[in-house]
Amino acid sequence: MQLTVYLAGQIHDDWREEVKQIADEKNLPLDFVGPQTNHDRSDNIGEDILGEQPSGFCKDDAASAVNNLRTQVLMQKSDVVIALFGEKYKQWNTAMDASAAVTLGKPLIIVRPEELIHPLKELSNKANITVETVEQALDVLAYIYE
Amino acid sequence: MQLTVYLAGQIHDDWREEVKQIADEKNLPLDFVGPQTNHDRSDNIGEDILGEQPSGFCKDDAASAVNNLRTQVLMQKSDVVIALFGEKYKQWNTAMDASAAVTLGKPLIIVRPEELIHPLKELSNKANITVETVEQALDVLAYIYE
Amino acid sequence: MQLTVYLAGQIHDDWREEVKQIADEKNLPLDFVGPQTNHDRSDNIGEDILGEQPSGFCKDDAASAVNNLRTQVLMQKSDVVIALFGEKYKQWNTAMDASAAVTLGKPLIIVRPEELIHPLKELSNKANITVETVEQALDVLAYIYE
Amino acid sequence: MQLTVYLAGQIHDDWREEVKQIADEKNLPLDFVGPQTNHDRSDNIGEDILGEQPSGFCKDDAASAVNNLRTQVLMQKSDVVIALFGEKYKQWNTAMDASAAVTLGKPLIIVRPEELIHPLKELSNKANITVETVEQALDVLAYIYE
Amino acid sequence: MQLTVYLAGQIHDDWREEVKQIADEKNLPLDFVGPQTNHDRSDNIGEDILGEQPSGFCKDDAASAVNNLRTQVLMQKSDVVIALFGEKYKQWNTAMDASAAVTLGKPLIIVRPEELIHPLKELSNKANITVETVEQALDVLAYIYE
Amino acid sequence: MQLTVYLAGQIHDDWREEVKQIADEKNLPLDFVGPQTNHDRSDNIGEDILGEQPSGFCKDDAASAVNNLRTQVLMQKSDVVIALFGEKYKQWNTAMDASAAVTLGKPLIIVRPEELIHPLKELSNKANITVETVEQALDVLAYIYE
Amino acid sequence: MQLTVYLAGQIHDDWREEVKQIADEKNLPLDFVGPQTNHDRSDNIGEDILGEQPSGFCKDDAASAVNNLRTQVLMQKSDVVIALFGEKYKQWNTAMDASAAVTLGKPLIIVRPEELIHPLKELSNKANITVETVEQALDVLAYIYE
Amino acid sequence: MQLTVYLAGQIHDDWREEVKQIADEKNLPLDFVGPQTNHDRSDNIGEDILGEQPSGFCKDDAASAVNNLRTQVLMQKSDVVIALFGEKYKQWNTAMDASAAVTLGKPLIIVRPEELIHPLKELSNKANITVETVEQALDVLAYIYE
Repeated sequence: MQLTVYLAGQIHDDWREEVKQIADEKNLPLDFVGPQTNHDRSDNIGEDILGEQPSGFCKDDAASAVNNLRTQVLMQKSDVVIALFGEKYKQWNTAMDASAAVTLGKPLIIVRPEELIHPLKELSNKANITVETVEQALDVLAYIYE
Repeated sequence: MQLTVYLAGQIHDDWREEVKQIADEKNLPLDFVGPQTNHDRSDNIGEDILGEQPSGFCKDDAASAVNNLRTQVLMQKSDVVIALFGEKYKQWNTAMDASAAVTLGKPLIIVRPEELIHPLKELSNKANITVETVEQALDVLAYIYE
Repeated sequence: MQLTVYLAGQIHDDWREEVKQIADEKNLPLDFVGPQTNHDRSDNIGEDILGEQPSGFCKDDAASAVNNLRTQVLMQKSDVVIALFGEKYKQWNTAMDASAAVTLGKPLIIVRPEELIHPLKELSNKANITVETVEQALDVLAYIYE
Repeated sequence: MQLTVYLAGQIHDDWREEVKQIADEKNLPLDFVGPQTNHDRSDNIGEDILGEQPSGFCKDDAASAVNNLRTQVLMQKSDVVIALFGEKYKQWNTAMDASAAVTLGKPLIIVRPEELIHPLKELSNKANITVETVEQALDVLAYIYE
Repeated sequence: MQLTVYLAGQIHDDWREEVKQIADEKNLPLDFVGPQTNHDRSDNIGEDILGEQPSGFCKDDAASAVNNLRTQVLMQKSDVVIALFGEKYKQWNTAMDASAAVTLGKPLIIVRPEELIHPLKELSNKANITVETVEQALDVLAYIYE
Repeated sequence: MQLTVYLAGQIHDDWREEVKQIADEKNLPLDFVGPQTNHDRSDNIGEDILGEQPSGFCKDDAASAVNNLRTQVLMQKSDVVIALFGEKYKQWNTAMDASAAVTLGKPLIIVRPEELIHPLKELSNKANITVETVEQALDVLAYIYE
Repeated sequence: MQLTVYLAGQIHDDWREEVKQIADEKNLPLDFVGPQTNHDRSDNIGEDILGEQPSGFCKDDAASAVNNLRTQVLMQKSDVVIALFGEKYKQWNTAMDASAAVTLGKPLIIVRPEELIHPLKELSNKANITVETVEQALDVLAYIYE
Repeated sequence: MQLTVYLAGQIHDDWREEVKQIADEKNLPLDFVGPQTNHDRSDNIGEDILGEQPSGFCKDDAASAVNNLRTQVLMQKSDVVIALFGEKYKQWNTAMDASAAVTLGKPLIIVRPEELIHPLKELSNKANITVETVEQALDVLAYIYE
């Protein structure tokens, strides 16, 4: 049974590659989708498509409209969502996607370091399970196939 | 027409009192609900009810379970959600509640300072409207009654 | 049984007053809600709340955000929707509200002049019933109470 | 990931062909569906199937029933909706389909000329994004695959 | 706890009066709603509102549009549906309303004579319970208050 | 685009074969599903599986349970429902399936002879379209592919 | 804000009275509803209404139909569900009601003795929170009003 | 038409193998999914992934989180649910899964021995059908393909 997994979370390192590599090693029949991981492209996509905008606010609004459409299409296609929180940045998109997943009835796995236990406690309580490493998240998915 | 408004967001200042005062001045028929605003009580509510927990993680999990039940009950009773983001703290609960509101089809007003335009851009794009002051949020609600 | 009726449609004449007057004459226990009917206020509400906007597009976007929030709150409170189409203007808001009502499972009555039979045929086919006068729309609502 | 796109909007020019051509050039794995684009066939389909109708109203009602069934089937199969508004005609079907898409949780891209910013502002505010050319709409879809 | 009960079914005798009388005798806090029970009015309501129609089909279609709007409004307000089948007539409206109730998650009580066990078996299997007399249906409702 | 069509309605003649034959002639990519058409098997399936039942009522209840499960599985897989009403029998199953389809948002085509216009008028008004012959129903489906 | 609480669970002791007494002492604005607590009446209600049944299975099926209708009506009216598990009996109704509550999006509090941690672990994980005493459950509800 | 069947219920014997064998013999195009059937693995999966937990309660909570995620993913993919109750154990998971299936609109077949008629009567009444042997459950599924 092929499953599609949405990888929500930070786009500042290559954790998604690690996810895919582990899935490959475990031979899991998973397809991965997620947000644009080129940060500049993600910030500029509104202007890239619509042309120059009159203000920073408008540039951000246009970019977020395109990013949100992408997320909406791909999350609706997904069977499970993994949301990874790192120690830097606001990461409100990650929280937004994780909460949307739960509200839509999509199973949610949160990955976060121990330091974030307290600030993430309510979101973590809503998730199906919270783990500390990407490898553990894949262990959870692998268990579906045992 | 009486409306119920859920006030999501930080619990470190008295912005909810300001909201209620402005609503009173404008004579708006609004009932306000929201999270526990006593920070210590919010953090300890799990142990206050269940007794001492074996670890910090368990204490946080128990507290968040009670906080989430409260939010779920009150948000389901609400007609509109106002989510206020300040400049400090992670505020992932606020993002979680705002995203849940949108996903449930509840109209959402975000209040945030100009500095947060960029990190909040995707959530802001999903909200019905984003304003910068509590007074503006009330102006939006008052408009419903004009 | 008190029912709430959303009055979608043009805001350039006083048809809503006529609706209310007929309901009063028939002693129907109906509450009426609807969009802002002061055209200037409706066009300017974004700037009235948020201050001057950098472009006409931004002014329109801000105004429509507030107008849409109002409609969303009030339509969710409604049991029936009446959508009136006149012979002038684009009236895309009316079509938008009428279609949203049907999709949400809200009963819909369309009022339109005979001249609009052809261009409105698909929307009319989706509505519960289409009539030609406001009085006929009220006859339909009065029938609920017979 | 193959996606299905419903192309709502006017049937008086060949914009849908342009959409398909651009998608081909970009090698996007998209399937396109939409309404009947032969205007006469669309207007006559009720009588073509059911035989002559007793009045113009009945002819229109029969045609719209068949057209609406087609739209309902195809939109339920779609992952994204593009709605194009031109400068002529009432285009209430386009507004109806666009609003139904949003209400059903289908991502919506509106294409409209600058002249229509004001009359389309509320619908535009509900859409995920509004662009001015068919090419820009395809840029948005292409971004999903980056 | 006040409950609203929709009384679907034939309009050719006074069984609804019997229901109300028994509910009064049992002092049950129930509000009853249902279809138009004046058969002629029900058949003519389309023409009564819209004027003479070009054919019998059109007259029937107009009447059914008004009747269906009434049913939709009142069933959405109901907590329970009682559907009574008698031995005469097609009673497809009753089957339609009963099936809609079940599909919407509204509890359904069917009342039917023993002779109809076989032809009603699938609908009966979908209902919460099937009884043979109006008094038994009220016994079921009274049990909610014990 | 392959579509699945549920064929609700009487099982006393071979109209479903006619449907399939026309679809073949028109080369329509349709899969057809429907109820058990062997009448005896349909009536006895409860006892065939569970063994002899203590009463006629119990035999009917057991059979209808299996028939309803089959219908629920297959209708959930369907994109369109065709419901055919003939001139004999109660046909409450057909009305039940047709109403369930509409309530679930499945497009519905009713096929019925002219004699049934009046008793079927409310259900017909809820359907997408009502036609008089199986061939016309297939014309409607063929139109989706034009 | 008045809330309605469904009290699912065993009917062999008077824990519901204890719940009401504590709520009274705390002055909580709660209405409590729940299943029939007279065990004999609950087991016989099918025969009490429909008359003697042909077998034990039929008697049980008739009784459960009436009990399920009662539960469906009252749970749909509830804002929160408390499900209490004791140490005796199968208590599958309690598990059924608790699971239905979670699936419907109703907040769920489980009360169970320490001995049941292991067999209830999956249901407990799905609940909002699990406590060991009725008093703790009321503490959770009281917290909503702080 | 390929269908996916979730096999809820006890994991202490090999009834799922029997199901698959009968399906093979009958050449039914069914895919079977279900919970982890290695009891120790199921109980330890939380610690197997997350490492040692501070208490028995925490171990159970971690294990149930992984088990529930697996069930949620697989049940959402399923077209039918079979829930088997044996004579031993609490089997609250089985009741939980069966109730979730019904609430989600998934057709449900219960398999249980005659001894459990009484304690399972309410859940049985909610299921589509209740049978006594695995073979009978497969007979029900085979009937879909006749």
